[in-house]
Parts: sequence; structure tokens; C-alpha cells
Amino acid sequence: MNFKIIIRALGALLLIESFFLLLSLGVSLIYGESDWSALLYSSGITLFVGAILLAISHKAVKKVGKREAYIIVSLVWIVFSIFGSLPFILSGEIPSITDAFFETISGFTTTGSSILNNIEAMPHGLLFWRSLTQWIGGMGIIVMSIAILPIFGIGGMQLFSAEVPGPTADKIHPRVRETAKRLWGIYLMFTIIETILLLLGGMSLFDAINHSFTTMATGGYSTKQASVAYWSSPYIQYVITIFMFIAGANFSLSYFAINLKFKKIWQDEEFRYYLGFTLFFSIVITVMLIFSENLGIERSFRDAIFQVVSLMTTTGYATADYMSWLVPISTLLFVVMFFGGSAGSTGGGIKIVRIVIMFKNSVLEFKRLIHPNAIIPVRMNHKAVNGRVVRNVLAFIVFYIIIFFVSTLIMSFFGLDVETAMGSVIACLGNIGPGIGSVGPAENFYTIPDAGKWFLGFLMLIGRLELFTVLIILSPAFWKK
Amino acid sequence: MNFKIIIRALGALLLIESFFLLLSLGVSLIYGESDWSALLYSSGITLFVGAILLAISHKAVKKVGKREAYIIVSLVWIVFSIFGSLPFILSGEIPSITDAFFETISGFTTTGSSILNNIEAMPHGLLFWRSLTQWIGGMGIIVMSIAILPIFGIGGMQLFSAEVPGPTADKIHPRVRETAKRLWGIYLMFTIIETILLLLGGMSLFDAINHSFTTMATGGYSTKQASVAYWSSPYIQYVITIFMFIAGANFSLSYFAINLKFKKIWQDEEFRYYLGFTLFFSIVITVMLIFSENLGIERSFRDAIFQVVSLMTTTGYATADYMSWLVPISTLLFVVMFFGGSAGSTGGGIKIVRIVIMFKNSVLEFKRLIHPNAIIPVRMNHKAVNGRVVRNVLAFIVFYIIIFFVSTLIMSFFGLDVETAMGSVIACLGNIGPGIGSVGPAENFYTIPDAGKWFLGFLMLIGRLELFTVLIILSPAFWKK
Repeated sequence: MNFKIIIRALGALLLIESFFLLLSLGVSLIYGESDWSALLYSSGITLFVGAILLAISHKAVKKVGKREAYIIVSLVWIVFSIFGSLPFILSGEIPSITDAFFETISGFTTTGSSILNNIEAMPHGLLFWRSLTQWIGGMGIIVMSIAILPIFGIGGMQLFSAEVPGPTADKIHPRVRETAKRLWGIYLMFTIIETILLLLGGMSLFDAINHSFTTMATGGYSTKQASVAYWSSPYIQYVITIFMFIAGANFSLSYFAINLKFKKIWQDEEFRYYLGFTLFFSIVITVMLIFSENLGIERSFRDAIFQVVSLMTTTGYATADYMSWLVPISTLLFVVMFFGGSAGSTGGGIKIVRIVIMFKNSVLEFKRLIHPNAIIPVRMNHKAVNGRVVRNVLAFIVFYIIIFFVSTLIMSFFGLDVETAMGSVIACLGNIGPGIGSVGPAENFYTIPDAGKWFLGFLMLIGRLELFTVLIILSPAFWKK
Repeated sequence: MNFKIIIRALGALLLIESFFLLLSLGVSLIYGESDWSALLYSSGITLFVGAILLAISHKAVKKVGKREAYIIVSLVWIVFSIFGSLPFILSGEIPSITDAFFETISGFTTTGSSILNNIEAMPHGLLFWRSLTQWIGGMGIIVMSIAILPIFGIGGMQLFSAEVPGPTADKIHPRVRETAKRLWGIYLMFTIIETILLLLGGMSLFDAINHSFTTMATGGYSTKQASVAYWSSPYIQYVITIFMFIAGANFSLSYFAINLKFKKIWQDEEFRYYLGFTLFFSIVITVMLIFSENLGIERSFRDAIFQVVSLMTTTGYATADYMSWLVPISTLLFVVMFFGGSAGSTGGGIKIVRIVIMFKNSVLEFKRLIHPNAIIPVRMNHKAVNGRVVRNVLAFIVFYIIIFFVSTLIMSFFGLDVETAMGSVIACLGNIGPGIGSVGPAENFYTIPDAGKWFLGFLMLIGRLELFTVLIILSPAFWKK
């Protein structure tokens, strides 16, 4: 194991974090609020530690193997969250270390589960930093899914990259740097466009930037305690819905869209299912809302599609308290929470491509029982999917479900009722934000015991990194020569 | 499709059902109660219809293919439940057709979910018939898992039969008849032994026979509204625990036990896990009960192991209302409900062998990610499991979970809260009996709307027949030439 290169990578990344903290300091200075010192100290400490790590590892051999990559990827989220929580602690705005770490890792993993009871009371610099953690996390996850996850061979992640200029061999291709840059450009561009559109809808510049950050990251942190429900404007809600949907789609498709290759988008099977699921659930819930809540067709449709897109893409904004809706509707949304965004998006969850492979394989299993000697492969985009990938996808989903149930059990030990235990687990494991039960959209995670918060933070991490990336480090086989 | 042979098989099986109805009539006559006429008419109608079916199919070609077998196996449970519900309807004891059918299919599938609010008020003949449906169902399921399911190739079911004198080729071997007879003998023998042991504990002969019927079938119907909690005797509770455990183990192991080949039992990997899971969950819950319920060590252990064995083997007896225990305990029991008995037992659920293969495969997936070019098979009993079987097992589990979630959703449409919806689904899909929420062990299924009862009956059927057996008939590929 090349430990020095791991240290070096973390050191370099800390310098980047220090820069982003400095950016937040700028915001604080504009507003002239008291949080500037906390941000300045945090940036300084992060810079200092980063520099030390770089200094002690300057002789590192520049060879990053697969195993080093696993460790770097897992550690960077933790290290970022530790240093990223400093501003909250130093400013006294979130005095508990547990709460501050929870809020920060919930940011970097683009989860969006919050412990804050009065978001509006927080100074602007810290609020900006809070949204920025999600934007950075979203950026990081795009790079990861383009450059690193396909190399790990974690099921389904290889599939989406086939059509994209990206890594094809089993080592990081020089073109990956190109691709990553290009996708960052698109990420930035969409953030700017959404900001402008939200400004046109009457949002303040500060709120518009923050919401664009957390939309594109499918993060879901809002600057308002009431989340997007604060703005009753249909225009704002529809704009956010559209950008959540874009953020939950494969980013390479946006690349095609910009190059006006719309046919290529439609050819992508995962996208067609993503669109199909979204419309299907939205329409079903619209109909149910029309009859149960009596809010009229447009409002029902808007509430339905906003909530479906928000939860399926794992963003987690709310324009309505879906826990107050009919039980079948909130149960349906609970099922939607398992879906997740597309591969190659900033969304979490199981991911559409895996859901589709699982469904296709289940149906084919009947065919295989009838024709036991025929070889009947799963097909995506008209190509046969390798049997190993299918097995890994199934193993992933089974793992996801096991973790879901075991974690629900663990959360119930912390005194939560079954529904809240399930809700908190899927909200964090799926990087969604709000869950069901007492962690629904109208409430938050403040009352969960400390140990529960640390555990949920761990779930955010493994959920964000496609389970295997983190858990493999805990397996003995990983450390065997 | 050879429809005539299907009709012929059903006709012959109806004659058998008519005989068992006659047996219940005998019990009714002994007690001199008013239900004799209902049982007599039911037996007569069943005999009559069976004879007609035989008559119209007497020219049937004696060739049963795989597809005919699928249809016979699925239909027989439905047909038996239709005719088996006649005594309840004709006697007026369960006037609603829905309720009577629910109670009967719950019997034949060895589920044990009941709609009865006052079991003790029912005449003895009908109570005996109710228990007998489970005993017949258990018998049927043993024959099926020995003779038919391995031929279908439904994942995991091939595995247990490898060591047993049973079918090895892809058609029904003449030795299967031998094996089936032998296992029936064991089933009958255990039923008699348990009856004697329960008599020795002070149970009445009627109660002893009924409980032995429903223990060996892992059915769980009791002659008392309070279930086994009616008898406070530790002896009775331990005897039932042991026999539930035996019924949840592979029946071929009992065959070895009778031949004093204990080493062979220990060599069976599924059995070791079955024992291990049972002890693990029992001990964890014992410790939790000692501290939360203050009932002393012996009582805590007895309640814990009784409930764990009852729910894991999918029997469903209760000696305590586990819904009144701490939330973490009832949540743990909810997880146990997914496990199920061993393959080749009368237990339902996912089955231990599948759970073990799933776990092993999940752990190996890490190894495979580290060594992407190595072929790393799952091993059971020191032998590599075919990759197709592993994939089928994973597909089975994924299917099980999908059905669980979708059915929960459907039940929530019938007005159930989320917990009760989940509880009713797992109770019926897993052939357990009581669930969680408002269908816990202290309550029953009476208040569920009619449409919900029919749907739950369908879940019992597909759960009992390893999902694929029934669902394959609904797939278009099945009907294509």
C-alpha cells in the first residue's frame, strides 16, 4: 500500500477545501456578519493541515493503484467533513461536534438531512458554506463516477460510460481529465443558468445561488426552514423541478444536449426509463391528490411532480408535507426513495440503471426456467450485459436491502419507532434528506440521539460511494497481499 | 398443453380432499355437534365434482410435462381452498365467502392468518378440519419440494436434494415415490410423537392432535384464541418449540436422525446456519427481554426462543404479544420473518439456504472486485454452486423484496397504516400467520377489507409455491409454443 500518495492526495484536496472556505469568507464579509472569523480560522487551519500533509509526503511515488484509490475516495469525504464542520463549531452556530459533523457530511454527500431548527437565523457566510459543501460534493461525485467508479467495476457503473468519451481501459485514461473538465463546465453552466432563472422568478441573488448549488448537486439544503415551500410561485417550483430532473440524469446526456444531439439522449435506455418512472409516479400521485386534497389539477400536478422528482433524484426539497397526505401516497413516495438518480448523475439511491437491470433480469428468469438450456442475457441499449455485471447489480441491490433492514433495526435501538427508523435510514443511505415518520419534510434530525447521528453519517457515506467502495476496505481480502 | 391430464389430476386430488372431509365428519359425530351436516355435504360435493372431473378426463394421455406440472401445482391449492371452505360456509360459522376462503387458503398454504374472533366457539369438527387443512398443506409441500420443485429449477431448491435419495435427472424418478412415502411416514410419526408428548403435558387429546397437525405443518392454527399462550406450562411450550424447529428443518435430516446418522445432519451446512440463526436471535432477544420485561431468565429465554422459532419457521404460534415488547425487539422479529424455514421443510419464507447463498455471494463480491479476473464461486457443503443457481437465488430474493414493497403499497390503498400493511404482507407472503402492527399476535385479519383479503390470499399462494411457480403461469413466455 502506497500510504504516502494517499496522504499527498488528501493534502492537495484540503488546499482546495481551504479555497472554498475562503470563498464563503468573502460572502460573510459582503454581509458584514460575525461569522467571518470562524470561516477565516477554518480556512487557515485547513490550509495549514493540507500543507503539512503535502510536506511530509513530497517524496511519494506517483503510483495510484486500485487499492489506494479506494482508500482516497473513502477518506476524502470524511476528511472534508471534519474540516468542513469547523466553521459551524468555531462560530458557535452548531455547538455540538456531532451535530456539526452530521450537517457537514450530510452536505458533502449531497444528502441534505439537517439538524437545524431555525435555518434563517444562521449568518449568510455559513449558509453559503453549507450549500457549497453540497455543490462540491456533487462535483466530486461526477468526477468519481466518470473516472474512478468504472475502474472499480461496481455493477452498473460501467454501463453508462460506454457511450461517453471516458475511461475504457482498466486504468485512468488521459482523456478522463478532458471529460471531467467538460462535465464540470456543464455543471457550472447549469448552476449559472438556474441562478438566472430563479432571479427572474423574484428570488434574491443569495437564495438563487444557494438553491442552484443544492439543486445541481441533488443535495436539497435550502436557505429557508420551510424549504422550497417558502416560495409559492409556481414558476420557481417548476424551474427547480426541471433542474432537479436534469441533475438526476446522466451528465453526459447534458453534454449531448448542448451539442444538440437530442437523438442520442432518446437512444439512452436508462434515460427513457428515468423519464417514464418520473411521469408514471407523478401522474398516479396527481390523480390521488386531486381527489384527496382538493387543490385543483395544476397545484396537484405541481406538488406531485415536484415531490416525485425531488425524492427520486434524491434531492430532498419539499413544497408540501407529504407525511400529511394519504397513507398510500406517502407509502408510494417511500418506494420511490429507493430508486435514485441515473448513473453518472449527482443523484444517490440504488440508481435507475440498476433498477432496470434488476427488473429485466427478473422477467428473464421466467424465460430461463422455461428454457433451462438457452443463454438469455439481459440487454441494455441493445447490447447484452455481461453476466458478471448482472450478478454484481443483483448483489448490490441485495446488499442495499440488507443494509436497509439491519440499519432500521439499529436505529430502532436508539429509541425510534419503526416508521421513523426506516425513514431516517433510507433518507441517509439514499442521500435524500427528509425521510418518513418523524424525519419527514416538516421535521428534522435534531432529536435523533448522537450515536444515531454518527451511524446515519456512516450510511450517507456508504450510500454516496455505491456501498462497495467503502465496505471493501473493511473486508479482510482487501488487506491481503 | 395436455389439459385433460390437468383435469384428471385435480379430480383425483379432490377425492383425497373428500376423504379428509369425511374424517372431520367423524370428529363431529364423536362430539355430537351440529356441524356434521355441513361436513357431510361438503364431502359429498367434493366427491361428486372430483368424480365428474375424472369421468370427463378418462381418456387423458398420461404425460405430465413441466408446463402441466406448473399448472397443476398452482391450481390444486386454489381448488382445495374453494372446496375446503364449504364446511365453514354451509355451517354458517363463517358466513362470508371471502372470510371462509381466506381462512381455508390460509390453512392449506400453512400460513395461519385467521379472521376468527372467537375460535373456542367453533364446533370441534370444523376446528379439526381447520387444523387438518394445514396438515394436508404441509404434506403437500413436502412432496412438492422433493418431487416437483427441483425439476422446475427454482433457485436453491436443487441444492438440498443433492444428498438425499431423490430426483437427480430432469424427470420424475421412480425412486421419488419411495422417498415421498418415506418422508410422509416421518411426518406422520412426528405428528403422533408430538401428540403423545403434549398429552403427557396435560393437554386434551383434541387440542394435542390439532396442535401437532399445525406444528408439523408450520401452520400455526390453534384451537384457542390466545394461541399457545393459553397453556402456561413451560413443558408444553418447550415441546412445541422443539417440534416447530424440527418442522422447519429439512425433512431428509429427520430421516438421517431416525437412522442415527447424526454426523450427516451436522454436515449439512444449511442446518448449521438454521441452528445458528435460531440461537443467535433467541439469545439477543432473551437478553433484551430480561432487561425490559423483568420476567426472569427462564421465562425470558422461553418467550424469546418460542417466538423466534415460531416466526423463523413461519409457524406463527404466540405465547406472548411481541407487539407489546420494546420496538427494537419487534423490529428484530420483523426481520426474522423474512428468513423462513429450511429448503425441504414445511416452512415458508425466503428459506435459510437462499439467505446463506445471498450472504456468501455478497461477501465474495468484494473478493471479485479485488480480483476481477478470478472465478470465485459460492460454496455450499464444500461444493461450488452453479452460477445460474446463484443468479436465480438472487433474482428470487429481489423478487421477494419487490413483491413485499409493491404489496405493502397495495395494502395501504385498502386503508391500512404502513406498519400494518407491511405486517399483513410479510405474514401472508411468508406463510407466517400473525404479522406486525394491527395484525400482530394479539389481533387478527378480520377487519381487513374484502379486496385486501383476496389479495393476501394470493400472496399466501405465491409465497407457498416459491413465487416463480405461480408467476411463471402469468408470463407470456409460458404460453408461447
